[in-house]
Amino acid sequence: MQNHPQAVKTLYWDSGKIDMIDQRILPATVRYVSCDSAETVARAIHDMVIPGAPAIGVAAAYGVALEALRLQGENAEQFLAGMDHAFDMLAKSRPTAVNLFWALNHMRSVMQSLAPSDRKKMAERLLNEAHNMLEEDIRINQSLGAYGASLLKDGDRVMTHCNAGALATAGYGTALGVFRSAVSQGKRIAVIANETRPFLQGARLTAWEMVQENIPVTLITDNMAGHMMSTGEIDAVVVGTDRVSANGDVANKIGTYMIAVLAQRHQIPFYVACPLSTIDLSLEKGSDIPIEERNIDEVKGFRDYHWAAEGVSIRNPSFDVTPAELVTALITEKGIVGNDVLVRGGLRQFVQEIA
Amino acid sequence: MQNHPQAVKTLYWDSGKIDMIDQRILPATVRYVSCDSAETVARAIHDMVIPGAPAIGVAAAYGVALEALRLQGENAEQFLAGMDHAFDMLAKSRPTAVNLFWALNHMRSVMQSLAPSDRKKMAERLLNEAHNMLEEDIRINQSLGAYGASLLKDGDRVMTHCNAGALATAGYGTALGVFRSAVSQGKRIAVIANETRPFLQGARLTAWEMVQENIPVTLITDNMAGHMMSTGEIDAVVVGTDRVSANGDVANKIGTYMIAVLAQRHQIPFYVACPLSTIDLSLEKGSDIPIEERNIDEVKGFRDYHWAAEGVSIRNPSFDVTPAELVTALITEKGIVGNDVLVRGGLRQFVQEIA
Repeated sequence: MQNHPQAVKTLYWDSGKIDMIDQRILPATVRYVSCDSAETVARAIHDMVIPGAPAIGVAAAYGVALEALRLQGENAEQFLAGMDHAFDMLAKSRPTAVNLFWALNHMRSVMQSLAPSDRKKMAERLLNEAHNMLEEDIRINQSLGAYGASLLKDGDRVMTHCNAGALATAGYGTALGVFRSAVSQGKRIAVIANETRPFLQGARLTAWEMVQENIPVTLITDNMAGHMMSTGEIDAVVVGTDRVSANGDVANKIGTYMIAVLAQRHQIPFYVACPLSTIDLSLEKGSDIPIEERNIDEVKGFRDYHWAAEGVSIRNPSFDVTPAELVTALITEKGIVGNDVLVRGGLRQFVQEIA
Repeated sequence: MQNHPQAVKTLYWDSGKIDMIDQRILPATVRYVSCDSAETVARAIHDMVIPGAPAIGVAAAYGVALEALRLQGENAEQFLAGMDHAFDMLAKSRPTAVNLFWALNHMRSVMQSLAPSDRKKMAERLLNEAHNMLEEDIRINQSLGAYGASLLKDGDRVMTHCNAGALATAGYGTALGVFRSAVSQGKRIAVIANETRPFLQGARLTAWEMVQENIPVTLITDNMAGHMMSTGEIDAVVVGTDRVSANGDVANKIGTYMIAVLAQRHQIPFYVACPLSTIDLSLEKGSDIPIEERNIDEVKGFRDYHWAAEGVSIRNPSFDVTPAELVTALITEKGIVGNDVLVRGGLRQFVQEIA
């Protein structure tokens, strides 16, 4: 398999293991974490080595393939029991990432389509499938990016939140893929990146990615978003998403909802870059999406540096839900779904017609 | 002069100097900065040793008194030239703090009411005036707190932003004074403190003050405010302010505007604790209030720990403006000014009738 021609490699196959760029220590240090089993992949996903939903899906597929390679010498019973355990571990590594379940279901169906008598061939086939998923993710994002770029004008100043970039995917990005596409169409785009407490993906990852691409980028703290809109310095918002319910409600990094409310007040379009795999038709509405609460140490400070007063209680919801009414459009790899379609409940039909 | 009976002393006279608690290093370290001249006081104000507007006003008054004590042996011409220079330096230390100008104008009028022939008596009189201002500030906040407490119900979960506490004033606090008053009235209050990037006054100062008082307090990142409101976990918002224009627009720490917009959406009352000295009738509207942009290093990280990607541009507006339409009520030491009064332009009349 050829590695794709991106400057930043998010995750790639390296003869017998999958290497993932460790986004917890970017941008100061560029280091890859090597995983050679489902367990090490699950741990990397849980520990936020790669925090983005699409990257997690691809990583989980490699986790399945790695486990099949590891167990191919066992008998059929042991092999299947081991694979069941691997699927379980990977499914539990990140409860809000629908791409994770999509990828695992896909890998399971590939596995079930093959005879368990030839475990070596099955492992090969699963690895091939993981490679395909990686390449397909890049193609999807490039297509999504082209649709999204058509919504931006030359000179637009565009706010984004968290990191929905190459680092969050297999290599092109969703929200940041829209910016890459716009620039490749010759549009001048200036990005305003919210730092995105507590994990600071905006300050560390989005700012870094845009600097690598020579796209102008300005960093602000999350609480400056309203002020920047009120002073007329923002023309559009583009964010990613971890999960969209059938009615078009959007679960994304904590703070997204706040930006959507502010954008509506200031009549600034609020776009969500949303690969179809992120849409979960099994959930009717946003309030059905479970909101993960993460370790409170993240809010006490950053990494090992804690500044919060001793004795204070802490909350750490990692996501919030933006209702469809606040979404100007979802940008998918198969086209744009406008607010009018969302609010009349047309997302399910859009997805089903494409499938 | 007796020190007031607060657990936390924000600033106090200590035979020939004024000691200020260094809020840049709280809560890890409790240390006082001693100032014995206008210059050292101006530097402490500029460097955010004490960031709150009312504390800055009292500190500036002591700065004037200290300079008079320092120069009392000079001849009249040198004394007056030195005092002019001192007023200048103190006025430039923090351009958005109206309390600073109010305090300096008051000290200048006291000085001008006295004969310059007796510099020793003048210095004594100015020092006495600074003592009075400190004690008056505490009385004002206690009165404001009692009015504000009447707006809160037993069991309320109240969000606040930045630190409008004892640490920001001479000893009781404005927004946090409201919570102290409510608790002293027997109401159970739970405080939700936004951490308040970039300087983290919420995580460090508000959380610390509330823990000292045994008032339940929960820390969140600023971008969680909308989520907490949407899940029904916030009953009211009380914030402080640095400056209110004649039409009732409120300048306060960056992020305040965002919270007000969210509170309106969720029909949560948004109260501003506002000593009368903070109202600046010389400014017609919020857009007349100058917005200070502070050093961008604050946004790169916290203190010397920088996490932002190299090469990114940065913005750091320190305040924003919340329009009067979003303010449920201003809470002053002379009573409550409701939204109906604000939106019909009645704030000027309220202030003038009281004066």
